[in-house]
Amino acid sequence: MLPSFHAYVGEQSHLAHLQNYQSRSNTFSMSSSLRQELLNQHTLSMASLNPDDTNYVLGVPQEVDSYHTLCPLEPLDTPTDQAQRTFGYITTCYKAINSKDGLLYVLRRVHGFRLVNAKSMVIVDQWKKISHSNLVSLREVFTSKAFGDNSLVFVYDYHPGAETLLSRHFSGPDSTLPVNADGSLAFPAPNRAGMPGANRGGSRHGLMPERLIWSYIIQLSSALRAIHSAGLPCRMIDPSKILLIGNSRLRINGCGIFDILSFDPSNSSNAMIPHFQQEDLTSLGKLVLALASCYSLQSIQREHIQQSLEYVAMNYSSDLKNLVIYLLSNQMTTHLKSVNDIMPMIGARFYTQLEAAQVKCDVMEGELAKEMENGRLLRLLTKLGVVNERPELGMDPSWSETGDRYLLKLFRDHVFHQVTDAGTPVVDLSHVVTCLNKLDAGSPEKICLMSRDEQSVLVVSYRDLHNCLESAFNEVLSSSLS
Amino acid sequence: MLPSFHAYVGEQSHLAHLQNYQSRSNTFSMSSSLRQELLNQHTLSMASLNPDDTNYVLGVPQEVDSYHTLCPLEPLDTPTDQAQRTFGYITTCYKAINSKDGLLYVLRRVHGFRLVNAKSMVIVDQWKKISHSNLVSLREVFTSKAFGDNSLVFVYDYHPGAETLLSRHFSGPDSTLPVNADGSLAFPAPNRAGMPGANRGGSRHGLMPERLIWSYIIQLSSALRAIHSAGLPCRMIDPSKILLIGNSRLRINGCGIFDILSFDPSNSSNAMIPHFQQEDLTSLGKLVLALASCYSLQSIQREHIQQSLEYVAMNYSSDLKNLVIYLLSNQMTTHLKSVNDIMPMIGARFYTQLEAAQVKCDVMEGELAKEMENGRLLRLLTKLGVVNERPELGMDPSWSETGDRYLLKLFRDHVFHQVTDAGTPVVDLSHVVTCLNKLDAGSPEKICLMSRDEQSVLVVSYRDLHNCLESAFNEVLSSSLS
Repeated sequence: MLPSFHAYVGEQSHLAHLQNYQSRSNTFSMSSSLRQELLNQHTLSMASLNPDDTNYVLGVPQEVDSYHTLCPLEPLDTPTDQAQRTFGYITTCYKAINSKDGLLYVLRRVHGFRLVNAKSMVIVDQWKKISHSNLVSLREVFTSKAFGDNSLVFVYDYHPGAETLLSRHFSGPDSTLPVNADGSLAFPAPNRAGMPGANRGGSRHGLMPERLIWSYIIQLSSALRAIHSAGLPCRMIDPSKILLIGNSRLRINGCGIFDILSFDPSNSSNAMIPHFQQEDLTSLGKLVLALASCYSLQSIQREHIQQSLEYVAMNYSSDLKNLVIYLLSNQMTTHLKSVNDIMPMIGARFYTQLEAAQVKCDVMEGELAKEMENGRLLRLLTKLGVVNERPELGMDPSWSETGDRYLLKLFRDHVFHQVTDAGTPVVDLSHVVTCLNKLDAGSPEKICLMSRDEQSVLVVSYRDLHNCLESAFNEVLSSSLS
Repeated sequence: MLPSFHAYVGEQSHLAHLQNYQSRSNTFSMSSSLRQELLNQHTLSMASLNPDDTNYVLGVPQEVDSYHTLCPLEPLDTPTDQAQRTFGYITTCYKAINSKDGLLYVLRRVHGFRLVNAKSMVIVDQWKKISHSNLVSLREVFTSKAFGDNSLVFVYDYHPGAETLLSRHFSGPDSTLPVNADGSLAFPAPNRAGMPGANRGGSRHGLMPERLIWSYIIQLSSALRAIHSAGLPCRMIDPSKILLIGNSRLRINGCGIFDILSFDPSNSSNAMIPHFQQEDLTSLGKLVLALASCYSLQSIQREHIQQSLEYVAMNYSSDLKNLVIYLLSNQMTTHLKSVNDIMPMIGARFYTQLEAAQVKCDVMEGELAKEMENGRLLRLLTKLGVVNERPELGMDPSWSETGDRYLLKLFRDHVFHQVTDAGTPVVDLSHVVTCLNKLDAGSPEKICLMSRDEQSVLVVSYRDLHNCLESAFNEVLSSSLS
């Protein structure tokens, strides 16, 4: 048994047989939907201020602390209502590049805030230590006068293309339910088939699929566990502060802002932390109830909660109903609620979530295996480009036309300039890829290279050509280093 | 705000800050460890029979049913002991290509087996329906005389580079524990610090890290849940039949073989299924006990089990001990054991496992975003190659030297043949990549292209060059289609 030359291998059968796996049509590179998602993230990362738009440019400083190339992520002139409501201060978000590591971050500026107590930075250090795949990590906090006032700036990881749960599920013209004459909410009737939780898609006023609700619950409770066990409260379980990345990954955003803004130096014993942690669980319960009540934020108003719970009981599993009831319950007097208590209600759904994550990993790995080959061929083609048609090397203008390089020139013609007997060009990416793969591996296979005047034919193996390329490229390389 | 030209974006900050994230050194392509793993899989997939090695070639048929290019995955002359022991028949494994879909599969041939009852194929259909990320999927079963006897062939997905738990954890010279004079096992003393389950790595005769044991438990129980809820028994929870792929992904292999080989048409009411399912759980308990007892298969012999349990209790959490005791218990008389009952013992470890899977997905996505750019540039460079130095088009031998193509020729020199003032070549991949990116995006940036005789300088924008390439390539393309 011997491994032979490199080539694109077909995809692995366990991936090819996956349902809904869309990449079959593309053997050489990744599926177009994933590509589109990554390109979209890419484009957003590259977005910058239009230098001609003075309205914006004037309001944005060139540099803030060690961050440059700021680009606002939301309209500057009208701070959104959500920002004001949630923090009690006006805030603005920018994308910016850190000059220390060259990476993109999000700066969240709190306008007109003068930091009073340096002790609150201890909390920042606690937050910086928490790393979790369902949290947006806080990187640093600093004060700045670069915006023309005393601003406090929170630096977070940048997740291009993320949207909030509020904008995905709770906004738009259909986001409020009609109200009956008696003041109760007019929930849409359950679907005729009477199937609870049947898949009616994620459309507005339809039922949210129960599976997706549990996926959200598992992710958010996972983040809460990490936060609570670090001795911190989250205080950000709010549709406007939870980011949705791609189709179903959640990340809680804005962590730590409340802790700093409301820092009370006289109360450094953190007596309020257990209270806030309890509130986190109540907020989670409200969020789940709102999602399960046809994406309606009205449903969690005090006067509607009972009606909403009945609606959930009618349309979803009893586990989900019990989870909401547990989270909304006020058990402070008897014993504290804990995020660990909801694990039995999640139960086997952990397996479902895990299976989905593993399959996603497998798909990614399959895509990566395909794309990996492209990087190798790009480097090979670059080497060939450096040698072919080089005007001169070491004062020798005929370098690229003589010796080994002549073979490589003819090989180049073989790869790119094939014609039919009638002289019609043949344009075929798979021919290019196959030739380059055999060249890269130095396959013993032989090919005929014809001179341009068709007067001579040379028979060489890919192995010979491989060696020619290596020596010719190394000649250029060592000449460049001399 | 406007998105500008394409380019390699730096990696995302949440990935750059991950601990143990090794790819920082490589901005243009994926991390070398992942690349190595994928290349290794790739090479194994490409392995084939050495046509000169007649010993092998003679014993392997050219074609079996719709499969060709067979390549044995284990020595042919001495069937391994495990194969004989586990199935009661001699079996041999081959890698082969299915001519219907061109994908690689594993054929497991059971020697000298004449299928008696076509009804057993119902079981095969049941197995084919189960798709799970911790199982090797069964694709089909057929009889064949291609090997010169009556063979039964089971077709599974091929997972290149997989090894069995037996070979990873239970083999080698250190795989048996010394035995004391009284016949008890001489377990190594717990580490001095007295920390139960402390990380002593996965070295032989050290403790297996508890976290890894739980990862195995979660994966195997996940597969068992899927199998049992489909009404089937697994019967393959054995170190020799569980594959380890990469660092920690398990897949149960060989499912369905027992069901077919021991098919009893007189007993079609499947009365034995609950019994075998109970045995699956007992086997899982034994496997966990063996792993937690310093990777010792002796520890699960009946006379050593009590001692092994004490060792586990001393070195691991009580959850793990209780799980093993539950799985090994014989509760047939009172009530049946169920894989669902172990979920509370796993508890919050689900979160840990899920977090690891999500982080892995994120890392893969980051790597893919980097490699994606290479595919785009490869295609671009191929287009340029098709145009540059083309000997003739439509009977015009000067096509590639005139008009737009002349600009592209000079641009090619600019990309690949840069020299310093002293005439020394400049070899710089990042220059190549940057130029190609700007060309691809049609950036408004202008560059000076100098003719080879240095007599004329042309100032053009990348946008102009982009349009030149598009029109020139399309000219070749339409000519090729005419």
